[in-house]
Amino acid sequence: MKFCSHCGNSVSARIPQGDDRQRYICDHCDTVHYQNPRIVAGCLVTWEKQVLLCKRAIEPRHGFWTLPAGYMENGETTEQAALRETWEEARARVHQQQLYMLFNLPHINQVYMFFRAQLSDLDFSAGEESLDVQLFDEADIPWNELAFPTVGKTLRRYFDDRQQEHYPVRMEDITYQPGNRPIR
Amino acid sequence: MKFCSHCGNSVSARIPQGDDRQRYICDHCDTVHYQNPRIVAGCLVTWEKQVLLCKRAIEPRHGFWTLPAGYMENGETTEQAALRETWEEARARVHQQQLYMLFNLPHINQVYMFFRAQLSDLDFSAGEESLDVQLFDEADIPWNELAFPTVGKTLRRYFDDRQQEHYPVRMEDITYQPGNRPIR
Repeated sequence: MKFCSHCGNSVSARIPQGDDRQRYICDHCDTVHYQNPRIVAGCLVTWEKQVLLCKRAIEPRHGFWTLPAGYMENGETTEQAALRETWEEARARVHQQQLYMLFNLPHINQVYMFFRAQLSDLDFSAGEESLDVQLFDEADIPWNELAFPTVGKTLRRYFDDRQQEHYPVRMEDITYQPGNRPIR
Repeated sequence: MKFCSHCGNSVSARIPQGDDRQRYICDHCDTVHYQNPRIVAGCLVTWEKQVLLCKRAIEPRHGFWTLPAGYMENGETTEQAALRETWEEARARVHQQQLYMLFNLPHINQVYMFFRAQLSDLDFSAGEESLDVQLFDEADIPWNELAFPTVGKTLRRYFDDRQQEHYPVRMEDITYQPGNRPIR
């Protein structure tokens, strides 16, 4: 951030009075520009024993498999965001959605929220951000071709929970490991 | 938003190519400025049968009682944010925190996340944003002087769940009711 979105003058990174964090503050109108984490909402969509994955048509991780998910927009609920992303990326209609997995990713300022949901019919297809959409049995999950750690962790947790048919809401932290590339 | 925070030139509200929502886009450098919901994180702090409330020293709802909570910052987890706010507003140390209530407030672009937590000692006090901090028995909760609907709903749910000693994670939507003032 270099300029004030309110008046167009330059900003400096300073600690506002009464605060303890550096913020971008306008040198002219004194507006403080806060920056906050974003929510990524998506669905773990199932059809009988199978789960739905999308092959990404965009970076990052072009060509890798993911659960349909994306940034929550202003004016919607997390559930609406998850269903919208599922429609946009997999053209999939779902029902019985329930909050399932939350991930904190503080190194990239994101909070993931995945809902479990049941596919309503088999009339799904790749949306603009997907190369392909497929249903996978547990034995056929492309574990080495998953786009993000959040996807693998959610799938593993789901297959575990499915054995007990009990799906409590869980929260996990995923943090940057020095020496590795930043993970998502 | 009137100016591009990247180059300082003016922005217009337009729908970017391949998008379906109006965004602020720079007329000069074409940067798209996305705006997304923010997370408010806080704690329902208990001590034996009592719950901890803070009397707000700031607007909105100056003088009304609230659970300690505030905007999650970049670089932290939701749990860290909830504990930080509990320290800042109530100077309270807690332990055994667990995710409890989530609220979607799409009319004000917020998602609330409350953790249940146990107070570690009675050495708490009003932080800068609080006029007072007190422990309340259920019978003494100032129901008509609570700052926000999220606070009352979380307290009611807690007193209900406490009877079964079972505290599942729950998500609720709180939406704007036309004719009323916007609620939080």
